[in-house]
Amino acid sequence: MIEPRSRRTSGKVVLVGAGPGAPDLLTLRAARALAEADLVLYDALIDRAVLDLAPKAAKFSVGKRAGRASVAQDTIHSLMVQAARGKKTVVRLKCGDPFVLGRGGEEVLALGAAGVRVEVIPGVTSAIAGPGGEGIPVTLRGVSSGVLVLTAVPEEPCLRVLARQDPKLITCVLLMALGARRAIVDGLAAAGWSPKTPAAIVLGAHGPRAHSWTGTLDELAEWVIPAGLEELPGLVVLGDVVAASERIRSALGVGQRDVVTESEVRLGSA
Amino acid sequence: MIEPRSRRTSGKVVLVGAGPGAPDLLTLRAARALAEADLVLYDALIDRAVLDLAPKAAKFSVGKRAGRASVAQDTIHSLMVQAARGKKTVVRLKCGDPFVLGRGGEEVLALGAAGVRVEVIPGVTSAIAGPGGEGIPVTLRGVSSGVLVLTAVPEEPCLRVLARQDPKLITCVLLMALGARRAIVDGLAAAGWSPKTPAAIVLGAHGPRAHSWTGTLDELAEWVIPAGLEELPGLVVLGDVVAASERIRSALGVGQRDVVTESEVRLGSA
Repeated sequence: MIEPRSRRTSGKVVLVGAGPGAPDLLTLRAARALAEADLVLYDALIDRAVLDLAPKAAKFSVGKRAGRASVAQDTIHSLMVQAARGKKTVVRLKCGDPFVLGRGGEEVLALGAAGVRVEVIPGVTSAIAGPGGEGIPVTLRGVSSGVLVLTAVPEEPCLRVLARQDPKLITCVLLMALGARRAIVDGLAAAGWSPKTPAAIVLGAHGPRAHSWTGTLDELAEWVIPAGLEELPGLVVLGDVVAASERIRSALGVGQRDVVTESEVRLGSA
Repeated sequence: MIEPRSRRTSGKVVLVGAGPGAPDLLTLRAARALAEADLVLYDALIDRAVLDLAPKAAKFSVGKRAGRASVAQDTIHSLMVQAARGKKTVVRLKCGDPFVLGRGGEEVLALGAAGVRVEVIPGVTSAIAGPGGEGIPVTLRGVSSGVLVLTAVPEEPCLRVLARQDPKLITCVLLMALGARRAIVDGLAAAGWSPKTPAAIVLGAHGPRAHSWTGTLDELAEWVIPAGLEELPGLVVLGDVVAASERIRSALGVGQRDVVTESEVRLGSA
């Protein structure tokens, strides 16, 4: 039940997309919302430098991370409604974009039902900027004319959607996919995907420890996440664009360490 | 052929995503790149206020718009390479995100082949923020666990990919789709899609004349773009999320005019 605008409080909630990780990939509008905020409720993985953009706000983590306790969604709704009714300006700060697997829709519905004014500020989504930051464009002329972004959890509906796709036509980006790799590899093999489908894993894109791996689908589940990087958010990319982007990665200096190592090996053996 | 870093010039090219239209949906990093630019080569549809963020730069439109002459892609590459070799800092300013159907990959390859240093700054993509700006989240818990972004031009490969999809599981966003609506409706009917599949058209999202329509697939091709809005960029959204987002649109005040009109009609006939 949406209450008429005239009966709304003067507080409001702004759902803000914080982008893929680097603090300066926040939008100008998001930075202004943070500057004006009285209260910031933020996800896990939000950089300290982003929170510093809200100097006058009280700040609380309501973040969810695999395996850790988190604040229940209903509690988050209550916190936002109470603060807005108390005439506060609340920023609900989310990783990436609020509408890409970020429960933004649910939060807008809860706030609307409570008669609280709500706005959404979109963000750069990790689903696209994550691969891009590691030199893998999700679309590439002549290779991929589209991109499918999908959560890998739960696995069953994900595999149902994936099984229909042709990775020679579009790029598939799977979020929350690291722990589901074995199920993905087996499910796609059963669906008739080639084991040699190009595949990539991107860890902590746009962050200081960003790391990526490229190979093929049949190697995806075996790749061991390097020590110290296990806590980074990760995504999986499937499709011909991964193999086609090798020169793009070189031009952008991504995976440069590997290239240097190869040169050194060649020089050493010459 | 990538030349070693040491032989590169000190100029560089930065491919910058300008976001979905509103000037303040640019990232902080993009704003800084513009402030430092000597030359800005920009797409059509870039807001004047964004160009004003580059006070010391020479600015040239290289934009493509349906039906109008544009600068050839090779010429854009040459302009960028020449300027970077002349030690200039070049910003190639693109609508949305450079890697979402923006030819960013091609430009990185051309610059890499010329030995020019190149960086990419991701932007908020219209493919996701466009529907979002009109109150349609591309994912929504229990309704859509993913989103497929696809160019509708050329039509044949688009239809080949679309025909495989289930709009009850994921959201499909079609870019450059306004002129292809008839082909899409007919092609999806032939592929067995329900004519009652929820559909939306979003025009000029996040701009001052943003406008949207919601209905069903069988009405998609007949909807007449309102006078004066024909030049706005448009996209098509297909999937159950369009129907499921009605209350989200109300909570965000999108399509409020239609709601008011309906109430007035009911009041008038009571």
